[in-house]
Amino acid sequence: MALPTLSTDKIDDKRVCLCRPCLLSKAIEAPAINPQFLAQLDAKILNKTMPAGALGRVIEIARQIACVQETLTIRTDPVEFWIFAADHGLAKEPISAFPQDVTWQMVQSFLNQGAAINCFARANSIDLNVVNAGVAYEFSEQNTLIDLSVAKGTASSLTGPAMTLSQTQLAITRGYDLIRASAAPIVGFGEMGIGNTSAASLLTAAITGADLDQCIGLGTGVSADGLEKKRDVLKRVFTRYKKEALPKGLHEALHSLQQLGGFEIAMMTGAFFAAAAQKKVALVDGFIATSAALAACSMNPNVRDSLIFSHCSAEQGHRIALKYLNATGLLDLGLRLGEGTGAALAVPLIRSAGAFLNDMASFGSAGISKG
Amino acid sequence: MALPTLSTDKIDDKRVCLCRPCLLSKAIEAPAINPQFLAQLDAKILNKTMPAGALGRVIEIARQIACVQETLTIRTDPVEFWIFAADHGLAKEPISAFPQDVTWQMVQSFLNQGAAINCFARANSIDLNVVNAGVAYEFSEQNTLIDLSVAKGTASSLTGPAMTLSQTQLAITRGYDLIRASAAPIVGFGEMGIGNTSAASLLTAAITGADLDQCIGLGTGVSADGLEKKRDVLKRVFTRYKKEALPKGLHEALHSLQQLGGFEIAMMTGAFFAAAAQKKVALVDGFIATSAALAACSMNPNVRDSLIFSHCSAEQGHRIALKYLNATGLLDLGLRLGEGTGAALAVPLIRSAGAFLNDMASFGSAGISKG
Repeated sequence: MALPTLSTDKIDDKRVCLCRPCLLSKAIEAPAINPQFLAQLDAKILNKTMPAGALGRVIEIARQIACVQETLTIRTDPVEFWIFAADHGLAKEPISAFPQDVTWQMVQSFLNQGAAINCFARANSIDLNVVNAGVAYEFSEQNTLIDLSVAKGTASSLTGPAMTLSQTQLAITRGYDLIRASAAPIVGFGEMGIGNTSAASLLTAAITGADLDQCIGLGTGVSADGLEKKRDVLKRVFTRYKKEALPKGLHEALHSLQQLGGFEIAMMTGAFFAAAAQKKVALVDGFIATSAALAACSMNPNVRDSLIFSHCSAEQGHRIALKYLNATGLLDLGLRLGEGTGAALAVPLIRSAGAFLNDMASFGSAGISKG
Repeated sequence: MALPTLSTDKIDDKRVCLCRPCLLSKAIEAPAINPQFLAQLDAKILNKTMPAGALGRVIEIARQIACVQETLTIRTDPVEFWIFAADHGLAKEPISAFPQDVTWQMVQSFLNQGAAINCFARANSIDLNVVNAGVAYEFSEQNTLIDLSVAKGTASSLTGPAMTLSQTQLAITRGYDLIRASAAPIVGFGEMGIGNTSAASLLTAAITGADLDQCIGLGTGVSADGLEKKRDVLKRVFTRYKKEALPKGLHEALHSLQQLGGFEIAMMTGAFFAAAAQKKVALVDGFIATSAALAACSMNPNVRDSLIFSHCSAEQGHRIALKYLNATGLLDLGLRLGEGTGAALAVPLIRSAGAFLNDMASFGSAGISKG
């Protein structure tokens, strides 16, 4: 399967309008890696008491974090996660095995500490935050829910754009401002939103150019019959989308996000911008978080340097998105839950990579014979 | 590639002599899983607030631990690891990129807390123990080194059996008695021994029946020329081994272990017996630890139930051994270091599986609509 991959060409200035998201994304620079720093880093790694390369991807992670942080002694704590929750107008169509009410019910469950991500956050010492990006529900006063709601759910992308352009821009900038205020060196983003696997499938097809059918999977676990209905709905959405003219000056990824995405996806896009701009390492969760990363990296490929893709989910569209971003998930455990669960499971690997680079002895200090 | 797999037939009593290792292995029973318990366990899992199966292998792990411990609320702490170190007579031949002295030097490094496994043990809250199973070195009085040394290195398997039968039996029973004394519900075994990738290749070929050539890899990272020399040496060892008659009554795996293995491998074999006998879950590290698991499972397939295979290493023989044991590594990070490093990286996944089964809300308790 020959799949397209992200162009590493410089961002095309002509496609960047002067809206805040475009300006924010444009400002992100690649890590300033000078040859001397890289030589020091590789010498430090090569001097660790083991055969060269024997820790495989653990070394790669440590190296990436060192490059993002521009330091030989990396910081892997604290780790802060945000779950962005929102509803989708498209969920009125037969695309999910669960009713739309499950979105707000799961938000309540996050706040009550009972969901999978709560268990994983506790088990892995992660500070967890829950964000209302646009759930179709009136939450009672909640001390711990971060209310950044753009609207009570998106419009249906079957009949028109999921969001207005200003809603899309607002979601991105709110995500940006939220993460910019964090001091954590490692951040992770998860999501909750009935119907958002469909939005991710549509976005992945739109941005990567892959066949839509290949980007559609079982989501929360629709039946074979349900999958056919879902395919039919998404094809009709995509046909409508293809007829929309790209407004002059608007970045194509921003256009796709507006037409096909959702509040939580746009907010994660802005969150990825902020992480990259602030030299944080961002752990990308599953298919939906990766669709936000696709949008962010399309607007500025420099964002890619700061991303660690935590896992490859059971959704086939996720493999296509990862391939486009030249990424392989750290874990491959057949997860398809979202909520940031895959990213949470990858956190200890990040800490171990830090322990390797920061604490492991060198051949010289340990008095070990080199091979 | 059609590879053989472990027979699940009952242990063949005729091939069990009355030596202590055979008696110990024979006494291991499969977990007593009754249908009612399984139904309760699966109902508990199915009621978790997520689409059925959405946590993939995390669910499988939780289910396996519950079955081993015969409980619906599993214990995943404390986690105790042992690194078994020993030397190999075969290391005199050109089979490794490192000199034999590296074995004792690395043991010193473990005791000095500077090796990769020390870093990973600290990062992942693992109690780490270092065992001298038979290093060719006179250690000065060490408070923390557990001395179970059988001899100062094995004989060369090129010219005769690596161990005498009584040495093999002693190593197995010492490993058994060591782990039997532990109260930890989760245990992990790693190893250190220059030349032991060769022993693992030979054992894997002998036990699985796979082609020896397919079981040989780069080990610590020999050169292309070095690999040719290593292949040549191992072929000669295997030819000698094939000519040895299997003593009457001796289990074939015990014979292979004696002829081709090492003290650390035999000790891990006994450690796996003790873990299984005591309803502990044992995390299997890489290729060498898996070769010990091969021997243990061949002597009694019931041992398999208690094993979690933490990762698939870069050594091609490891894939063959895993396939034989009907196992897939939890992680696939291109590791090839040993020391228990892969098992240590998998520990947080075990804890997260425990958090999932023990702490996650049910649909009923959380008030979530079911799909």
